[in-house]
Amino acid sequence: MPRDSAATRARILDAAIEEFSAFGLAGARIDRIAAAADANKRSIYVYFESKERLFTAALHRVIEELVAVVPLTEDDLPGYAGRMFDHLLVRPQALRMSMWRHLERPDTGPDAGDVYAEKVVAMRRRGNAADPGGIPPVDLLVLTLGLANSWLVTPDDLLRADGSDPRSPERLAVHRAAIVEAARRLGDPVHSPR
Amino acid sequence: MPRDSAATRARILDAAIEEFSAFGLAGARIDRIAAAADANKRSIYVYFESKERLFTAALHRVIEELVAVVPLTEDDLPGYAGRMFDHLLVRPQALRMSMWRHLERPDTGPDAGDVYAEKVVAMRRRGNAADPGGIPPVDLLVLTLGLANSWLVTPDDLLRADGSDPRSPERLAVHRAAIVEAARRLGDPVHSPR
Repeated sequence: MPRDSAATRARILDAAIEEFSAFGLAGARIDRIAAAADANKRSIYVYFESKERLFTAALHRVIEELVAVVPLTEDDLPGYAGRMFDHLLVRPQALRMSMWRHLERPDTGPDAGDVYAEKVVAMRRRGNAADPGGIPPVDLLVLTLGLANSWLVTPDDLLRADGSDPRSPERLAVHRAAIVEAARRLGDPVHSPR
Repeated sequence: MPRDSAATRARILDAAIEEFSAFGLAGARIDRIAAAADANKRSIYVYFESKERLFTAALHRVIEELVAVVPLTEDDLPGYAGRMFDHLLVRPQALRMSMWRHLERPDTGPDAGDVYAEKVVAMRRRGNAADPGGIPPVDLLVLTLGLANSWLVTPDDLLRADGSDPRSPERLAVHRAAIVEAARRLGDPVHSPR
């Protein structure tokens, strides 16, 4: 392997994340990835074998980054939801690639199962028994992610239903506070009014 | 127009919903839609002008159906969330087409704004002032939809983190109950334990 192979590989992955985020698996063009990465097509196939495997590797990298930048704080789901929203605002590629994966490749992708399984065990240990509504830990986690993502995948016509600009910094700040409050209520069945 | 034009148009739309749901806007093939609708390609362009407009029409139809089958009951968001989940389970095309739209055509689509705006006004009238956490009506609605959808768009490795089969009827029933309970907590900042 050439001595700059790690750097080339990283450039290819970065370019692949941009290309797949924009066009999905079927719509992506290896030519464009090669041009953007300043690499040749052949090196892409040498490193990643196929477009499908490159997609999986790019998805894996985006998810790894997400997990590193927004660690799952299972004892603070409201904070987790807010930080997830912040990250997805500046890094929409993570959400877009997850959506392409859902639509085009539901059975493949990174196996983050161990990360989540550990957290789920920790959540169960913390006491789902204390939750009279009986929302299981996995469901609590999935629903929290739903709260964090929903604004970003909702059509503008609904977001604008109260007349405000859904992408303005002020509106996003209001919605971020709503996410955090919603996650607080979700995880706290016995809370009382502030 | 031939007397069976309404029937032909409806068959084309039904076929378009299946094709676009499966492959998205860029990936869909008018040939396949024509074959599935037992229509000729020319009639598709006569009725819908372009692939883009056919996509918008198909999306509009799926959303109309969704709004008709699952009316937004702004005074019962937990019930709404549960019924939305039920509908999306049997009619994944609605969610898939919304996701394709988000990825491929964010600035187009049906204008359901009036439907939502009315409901948002009604929600505000019911008294957001009674909500000490201050979640605005639009945000409450968007977050409720996030709760309803999240299980259906989450990768299997997370859904399986507790070892159960995420698509089994039993597991789906547990999650449905979790959605309803979550929406109840979300909309009821002052609730007390049951």
